[in-house]
Amino acid sequence: MTNVDLASLVRNVPDFPIPGIQFKDITTLISNGSAFQQVITTLADRYRPLGIDAVVGIESRGFIFSAPLALELKVGLVPVRKPGKLPADTYQIEYALEYGTSKLEIHRDAFVPGARVIVIDDLLATGGTISAATQLIEQAGARVIELAFVIELAFLNGRDKLEGYPVYSLIQY
Amino acid sequence: MTNVDLASLVRNVPDFPIPGIQFKDITTLISNGSAFQQVITTLADRYRPLGIDAVVGIESRGFIFSAPLALELKVGLVPVRKPGKLPADTYQIEYALEYGTSKLEIHRDAFVPGARVIVIDDLLATGGTISAATQLIEQAGARVIELAFVIELAFLNGRDKLEGYPVYSLIQY
Repeated sequence: MTNVDLASLVRNVPDFPIPGIQFKDITTLISNGSAFQQVITTLADRYRPLGIDAVVGIESRGFIFSAPLALELKVGLVPVRKPGKLPADTYQIEYALEYGTSKLEIHRDAFVPGARVIVIDDLLATGGTISAATQLIEQAGARVIELAFVIELAFLNGRDKLEGYPVYSLIQY
Repeated sequence: MTNVDLASLVRNVPDFPIPGIQFKDITTLISNGSAFQQVITTLADRYRPLGIDAVVGIESRGFIFSAPLALELKVGLVPVRKPGKLPADTYQIEYALEYGTSKLEIHRDAFVPGARVIVIDDLLATGGTISAATQLIEQAGARVIELAFVIELAFLNGRDKLEGYPVYSLIQY
Protein backbone atom coordinates (compact mmCIF):
# COMPACT_ATOMS: atom_id res chain seq x y z
CA MET A 1 0.00 0.00 0.00
CA THR A 2 1.33 3.43 -0.95
CA ASN A 3 1.57 5.69 2.05
CA VAL A 4 -0.88 8.57 2.14
CA ASP A 5 0.31 11.89 3.60
CA LEU A 6 -2.22 11.95 6.43
CA ALA A 7 -1.48 15.52 7.57
CA SER A 8 -2.33 16.85 4.11
CA LEU A 9 -5.85 15.40 4.47
CA VAL A 10 -6.63 17.17 7.75
CA ARG A 11 -8.55 20.35 6.93
CA ASN A 12 -7.61 23.49 8.84
CA VAL A 13 -10.71 25.55 9.65
CA PRO A 14 -9.79 28.99 11.02
CA ASP A 15 -11.83 30.59 13.81
CA PHE A 16 -13.80 27.48 14.78
CA PRO A 17 -15.44 27.08 17.24
CA ILE A 18 -14.32 30.56 18.35
CA PRO A 19 -12.16 33.32 16.81
CA GLY A 20 -8.45 32.59 16.98
CA ILE A 21 -8.72 28.79 17.02
CA GLN A 22 -7.34 26.81 14.06
CA PHE A 23 -9.63 23.77 14.11
CA LYS A 24 -8.21 20.50 12.81
CA ASP A 25 -11.00 18.81 10.85
CA ILE A 26 -10.61 15.05 10.51
CA THR A 27 -13.73 14.57 8.35
CA THR A 28 -11.62 15.17 5.23
CA LEU A 29 -9.26 12.41 6.35
CA ILE A 30 -11.89 9.78 7.20
CA SER A 31 -13.85 10.43 4.01
CA ASN A 32 -10.78 9.10 2.19
CA GLY A 33 -11.01 5.31 2.41
CA SER A 34 -7.26 4.71 1.87
CA ALA A 35 -6.22 7.28 4.45
CA PHE A 36 -8.70 5.96 7.03
CA GLN A 37 -7.38 2.43 6.36
CA GLN A 38 -3.81 3.62 6.84
CA VAL A 39 -4.61 5.18 10.22
CA ILE A 40 -6.17 1.99 11.53
CA THR A 41 -3.56 -0.34 10.03
CA THR A 42 -0.76 1.71 11.58
CA LEU A 43 -2.38 1.58 15.02
CA ALA A 44 -3.26 -2.12 14.73
CA ASP A 45 0.30 -3.05 13.69
CA ARG A 46 1.61 -1.14 16.71
CA TYR A 47 -0.74 -2.74 19.26
CA ARG A 48 -1.19 -6.29 17.91
CA PRO A 49 2.00 -7.59 19.61
CA LEU A 50 1.12 -6.08 22.99
CA GLY A 51 -1.60 -8.51 24.11
CA ILE A 52 -4.39 -5.94 24.36
CA ASP A 53 -7.70 -7.04 25.94
CA ALA A 54 -9.87 -4.06 24.97
CA VAL A 55 -9.80 -0.71 23.19
CA VAL A 56 -11.33 2.28 24.97
CA GLY A 57 -12.87 5.06 22.87
CA ILE A 58 -13.71 8.57 24.09
CA GLU A 59 -17.07 9.98 22.95
CA SER A 60 -17.67 10.90 20.26
CA ARG A 61 -14.92 11.37 17.65
CA GLY A 62 -12.85 8.83 19.53
CA PHE A 63 -15.39 6.18 18.53
CA ILE A 64 -14.50 6.74 14.86
CA PHE A 65 -10.99 5.40 15.42
CA SER A 66 -11.38 3.13 18.45
CA ALA A 67 -14.15 0.98 16.96
CA PRO A 68 -12.22 -0.08 13.83
CA LEU A 69 -9.07 -0.60 15.90
CA ALA A 70 -10.94 -2.92 18.27
CA LEU A 71 -12.18 -4.89 15.25
CA GLU A 72 -8.69 -5.13 13.77
CA LEU A 73 -7.29 -6.35 17.09
CA LYS A 74 -10.28 -8.72 17.50
CA VAL A 75 -11.05 -7.37 20.96
CA GLY A 76 -14.00 -5.52 22.46
CA LEU A 77 -14.65 -1.79 22.52
CA VAL A 78 -15.39 0.06 25.76
CA PRO A 79 -16.90 3.56 25.48
CA VAL A 80 -16.16 6.46 27.82
CA ARG A 81 -19.15 8.77 27.50
CA LYS A 82 -20.61 12.08 28.58
CA PRO A 83 -22.90 11.89 31.64
CA GLY A 84 -26.36 10.37 31.36
CA LYS A 85 -25.60 8.24 28.28
CA LEU A 86 -24.46 4.95 29.80
CA PRO A 87 -27.49 3.12 31.19
CA ALA A 88 -26.01 0.77 33.83
CA ASP A 89 -24.00 1.57 36.99
CA THR A 90 -21.13 3.95 36.21
CA TYR A 91 -18.09 5.62 37.68
CA GLN A 92 -18.04 9.36 37.02
CA ILE A 93 -15.24 11.91 36.99
CA GLU A 94 -15.43 15.70 36.86
CA TYR A 95 -12.49 17.60 35.38
CA ALA A 96 -11.48 21.17 34.66
CA LEU A 97 -11.69 22.74 31.21
CA GLU A 98 -10.31 26.15 30.24
CA TYR A 99 -13.72 27.59 31.15
CA GLY A 100 -15.78 25.53 33.62
CA THR A 101 -15.81 21.76 34.08
CA SER A 102 -16.93 18.65 32.25
CA LYS A 103 -17.76 15.07 33.23
CA LEU A 104 -17.13 11.61 31.85
CA GLU A 105 -18.55 8.19 32.74
CA ILE A 106 -17.65 4.54 32.29
CA HIS A 107 -19.63 1.40 33.14
CA ARG A 108 -18.43 -0.16 36.40
CA ASP A 109 -18.49 -3.62 34.79
CA ALA A 110 -16.74 -2.53 31.59
CA PHE A 111 -13.58 -4.61 32.08
CA VAL A 112 -12.41 -7.95 33.35
CA PRO A 113 -10.08 -7.10 36.26
CA GLY A 114 -6.58 -6.21 35.11
CA ALA A 115 -7.56 -5.86 31.43
CA ARG A 116 -4.76 -4.38 29.31
CA VAL A 117 -6.23 -1.50 27.32
CA ILE A 118 -5.34 1.11 24.72
CA VAL A 119 -7.20 4.42 24.89
CA ILE A 120 -7.95 6.27 21.63
CA ASP A 121 -9.13 9.79 20.98
CA ASP A 122 -8.93 11.85 17.81
CA LEU A 123 -6.99 14.78 19.26
CA LEU A 124 -4.52 15.48 22.08
CA ALA A 125 -4.77 19.15 23.03
CA THR A 126 -4.24 20.16 26.68
CA GLY A 127 -4.74 16.56 27.84
CA GLY A 128 -7.56 17.29 30.30
CA THR A 129 -10.08 14.90 28.80
CA ILE A 130 -7.70 11.98 28.31
CA SER A 131 -6.20 12.42 31.76
CA ALA A 132 -9.68 12.20 33.31
CA ALA A 133 -10.57 9.22 31.12
CA THR A 134 -7.40 7.42 32.23
CA GLN A 135 -8.30 7.83 35.91
CA LEU A 136 -11.78 6.53 35.21
CA ILE A 137 -10.46 3.47 33.34
CA GLU A 138 -8.13 2.61 36.21
CA GLN A 139 -10.98 3.04 38.70
CA ALA A 140 -12.89 0.47 36.64
CA GLY A 141 -10.00 -1.97 37.11
CA ALA A 142 -8.13 -1.86 33.79
CA ARG A 143 -4.48 -1.18 33.05
CA VAL A 144 -3.72 1.57 30.52
CA ILE A 145 -0.94 0.38 28.22
CA GLU A 146 -0.83 3.42 25.91
CA LEU A 147 -2.78 6.53 24.96
CA ALA A 148 -3.12 7.00 21.20
CA PHE A 149 -4.23 10.01 19.15
CA VAL A 150 -4.63 10.71 15.47
CA ILE A 151 -3.56 14.33 15.97
CA GLU A 152 -1.36 15.90 18.64
CA LEU A 153 -1.23 19.67 19.14
CA ALA A 154 2.28 19.43 20.55
CA PHE A 155 2.49 23.17 21.33
CA LEU A 156 -0.20 22.71 24.01
CA ASN A 157 2.05 20.27 25.94
CA GLY A 158 -0.75 17.79 26.65
CA ARG A 159 1.88 15.11 27.40
CA ASP A 160 2.79 16.97 30.59
CA LYS A 161 -0.58 15.98 32.07
CA LEU A 162 -0.04 12.33 31.11
CA GLU A 163 3.22 11.57 32.90
CA GLY A 164 3.79 7.86 33.43
CA TYR A 165 1.75 6.86 30.39
CA PRO A 166 3.19 6.15 26.95
CA VAL A 167 1.63 8.52 24.39
CA TYR A 168 1.53 7.91 20.64
CA SER A 169 0.24 10.17 17.88
CA LEU A 170 0.13 9.89 14.10
CA ILE A 171 0.17 13.58 13.14
CA GLN A 172 1.85 16.37 15.12
CA TYR A 173 1.43 20.15 14.91
CA MET B 1 -16.68 -18.67 12.85
CA THR B 2 -19.36 -19.92 15.24
CA ASN B 3 -22.36 -17.65 15.25
CA VAL B 4 -22.88 -15.65 18.41
CA ASP B 5 -26.48 -15.03 19.57
CA LEU B 6 -26.28 -11.24 19.29
CA ALA B 7 -29.62 -10.54 21.01
CA SER B 8 -28.47 -12.38 24.13
CA LEU B 9 -25.58 -9.89 24.45
CA VAL B 10 -27.76 -6.77 24.43
CA ARG B 11 -28.40 -5.76 28.04
CA ASN B 12 -31.92 -4.67 28.94
CA VAL B 13 -31.83 -1.78 31.43
CA PRO B 14 -35.29 -1.04 32.85
CA ASP B 15 -36.41 2.55 33.50
CA PHE B 16 -33.57 4.27 31.60
CA PRO B 17 -33.46 7.13 30.78
CA ILE B 18 -36.95 7.55 32.26
CA PRO B 19 -39.38 5.24 34.12
CA GLY B 20 -41.19 2.80 31.85
CA ILE B 21 -38.48 2.63 29.14
CA GLN B 22 -36.65 -0.67 28.60
CA PHE B 23 -33.26 0.59 27.36
CA LYS B 24 -31.34 -1.66 24.98
CA ASP B 25 -27.67 -1.40 26.00
CA ILE B 26 -25.21 -2.31 23.23
CA THR B 27 -22.09 -1.84 25.38
CA THR B 28 -22.34 -5.49 26.48
CA LEU B 29 -22.39 -6.54 22.82
CA ILE B 30 -19.45 -4.42 21.63
CA SER B 31 -17.29 -5.38 24.61
CA ASN B 32 -17.41 -8.93 23.20
CA GLY B 33 -14.83 -9.01 20.40
CA SER B 34 -16.41 -11.97 18.55
CA ALA B 35 -19.90 -10.50 18.66
CA PHE B 36 -18.70 -7.09 17.48
CA GLN B 37 -16.80 -8.81 14.65
CA GLN B 38 -19.93 -10.73 13.68
CA VAL B 39 -22.02 -7.56 13.45
CA ILE B 40 -19.53 -5.88 11.14
CA THR B 41 -18.86 -8.98 9.02
CA THR B 42 -22.59 -9.50 8.48
CA LEU B 43 -23.07 -5.92 7.36
CA ALA B 44 -19.94 -5.92 5.18
CA ASP B 45 -20.95 -9.15 3.44
CA ARG B 46 -24.35 -7.62 2.71
CA TYR B 47 -23.03 -4.34 1.28
CA ARG B 48 -19.79 -5.40 -0.43
CA PRO B 49 -21.57 -6.44 -3.68
CA LEU B 50 -23.57 -3.19 -3.90
CA GLY B 51 -20.84 -0.79 -5.04
CA ILE B 52 -21.00 1.53 -2.04
CA ASP B 53 -19.02 4.80 -2.18
CA ALA B 54 -19.29 5.85 1.48
CA VAL B 55 -20.78 4.84 4.82
CA VAL B 56 -22.68 7.47 6.79
CA GLY B 57 -22.70 7.26 10.60
CA ILE B 58 -25.11 9.07 12.92
CA GLU B 59 -23.56 10.64 16.05
CA SER B 60 -22.61 9.15 18.36
CA ARG B 61 -23.38 5.44 18.82
CA GLY B 62 -23.77 5.18 15.06
CA PHE B 63 -20.03 5.88 14.76
CA ILE B 64 -19.28 2.65 16.65
CA PHE B 65 -20.70 0.55 13.81
CA SER B 66 -20.31 2.82 10.77
CA ALA B 67 -16.57 3.36 11.19
CA PRO B 68 -15.57 -0.34 11.14
CA LEU B 69 -18.03 -1.00 8.29
CA ALA B 70 -16.43 1.77 6.21
CA LEU B 71 -13.03 0.18 6.86
CA GLU B 72 -14.26 -3.28 5.88
CA LEU B 73 -15.76 -1.91 2.67
CA LYS B 74 -12.58 0.15 2.07
CA VAL B 75 -14.58 3.35 1.63
CA GLY B 76 -14.74 6.63 3.54
CA LEU B 77 -16.89 7.48 6.54
CA VAL B 78 -19.14 10.56 6.57
CA PRO B 79 -20.46 11.72 9.96
CA VAL B 80 -23.90 13.24 10.56
CA ARG B 81 -23.54 15.25 13.75
CA LYS B 82 -25.38 17.36 16.27
CA PRO B 83 -25.28 21.14 15.59
CA GLY B 84 -22.08 23.08 16.15
CA LYS B 85 -19.73 20.09 15.84
CA LEU B 86 -18.87 20.12 12.14
CA PRO B 87 -16.47 22.99 11.44
CA ALA B 88 -16.93 23.69 7.70
CA ASP B 89 -20.09 24.72 5.75
CA THR B 90 -23.03 22.48 6.64
CA TYR B 91 -26.61 21.70 5.75
CA GLN B 92 -28.84 21.55 8.81
CA ILE B 93 -32.21 19.93 9.45
CA GLU B 94 -34.59 20.34 12.39
CA TYR B 95 -36.94 17.48 13.22
CA ALA B 96 -39.62 16.66 15.75
CA LEU B 97 -39.01 14.43 18.77
CA GLU B 98 -41.68 13.14 21.14
CA TYR B 99 -41.04 16.25 23.24
CA GLY B 100 -39.53 19.22 21.41
CA THR B 101 -37.20 19.20 18.43
CA SER B 102 -33.61 18.28 17.57
CA LYS B 103 -31.17 19.18 14.81
CA LEU B 104 -28.58 17.38 12.70
CA GLU B 105 -25.85 18.64 10.38
CA ILE B 106 -23.72 17.33 7.52
CA HIS B 107 -20.83 18.96 5.68
CA ARG B 108 -21.94 20.38 2.32
CA ASP B 109 -18.88 18.90 0.62
CA ALA B 110 -19.22 15.47 2.28
CA PHE B 111 -19.90 13.50 -0.91
CA VAL B 112 -18.91 13.30 -4.54
CA PRO B 113 -22.17 13.97 -6.44
CA GLY B 114 -24.33 10.86 -6.74
CA ALA B 115 -22.33 8.85 -4.18
CA ARG B 116 -24.05 5.58 -3.24
CA VAL B 117 -24.21 5.39 0.54
CA ILE B 118 -25.34 3.16 3.38
CA VAL B 119 -26.52 4.88 6.56
CA ILE B 120 -25.87 3.18 9.92
CA ASP B 121 -27.26 3.83 13.35
CA ASP B 122 -27.34 1.59 16.39
CA LEU B 123 -31.10 1.66 16.94
CA LEU B 124 -34.28 2.15 14.90
CA ALA B 125 -37.03 3.40 17.23
CA THR B 126 -39.65 5.82 15.87
CA GLY B 127 -37.46 6.64 12.86
CA GLY B 128 -37.38 10.41 13.39
CA THR B 129 -33.60 10.75 13.53
CA ILE B 130 -32.83 8.50 10.57
CA SER B 131 -35.56 10.08 8.46
CA ALA B 132 -34.05 13.53 9.07
CA ALA B 133 -30.54 12.20 8.39
CA THR B 134 -31.69 10.70 5.09
CA GLN B 135 -33.09 14.05 3.92
CA LEU B 136 -29.84 15.73 4.87
CA ILE B 137 -27.74 13.16 3.00
CA GLU B 138 -29.82 13.62 -0.15
CA GLN B 139 -29.54 17.39 0.16
CA ALA B 140 -25.76 16.91 0.18
CA GLY B 141 -26.04 15.05 -3.15
CA ALA B 142 -25.73 11.37 -2.19
CA ARG B 143 -28.04 8.47 -2.95
CA VAL B 144 -29.18 6.39 0.03
CA ILE B 145 -29.01 2.70 -0.91
CA GLU B 146 -30.08 1.24 2.44
CA LEU B 147 -30.60 2.16 6.10
CA ALA B 148 -29.02 -0.33 8.51
CA PHE B 149 -29.46 -0.76 12.26
CA VAL B 150 -28.06 -3.12 14.84
CA ILE B 151 -31.36 -3.11 16.77
CA GLU B 152 -34.89 -2.45 15.54
CA LEU B 153 -37.73 -1.79 18.02
CA ALA B 154 -40.28 -3.12 15.54
CA PHE B 155 -43.27 -2.31 17.80
CA LEU B 156 -42.56 1.42 17.28
CA ASN B 157 -43.12 1.07 13.50
CA GLY B 158 -40.12 3.21 12.57
CA ARG B 159 -40.19 1.74 9.04
CA ASP B 160 -43.42 3.65 8.37
CA LYS B 161 -41.43 6.91 8.40
CA LEU B 162 -38.87 5.45 5.97
CA GLU B 163 -41.08 4.50 3.04
CA GLY B 164 -39.17 4.14 -0.20
CA TYR B 165 -35.93 3.14 1.53
CA PRO B 166 -34.76 -0.41 2.14
CA VAL B 167 -34.27 -1.00 5.87
CA TYR B 168 -32.13 -3.74 7.38
CA SER B 169 -31.65 -4.68 11.03
CA LEU B 170 -29.71 -7.41 12.80
CA ILE B 171 -31.79 -7.76 15.99
CA GLN B 172 -35.54 -7.13 16.25
CA TYR B 173 -37.74 -6.63 19.33
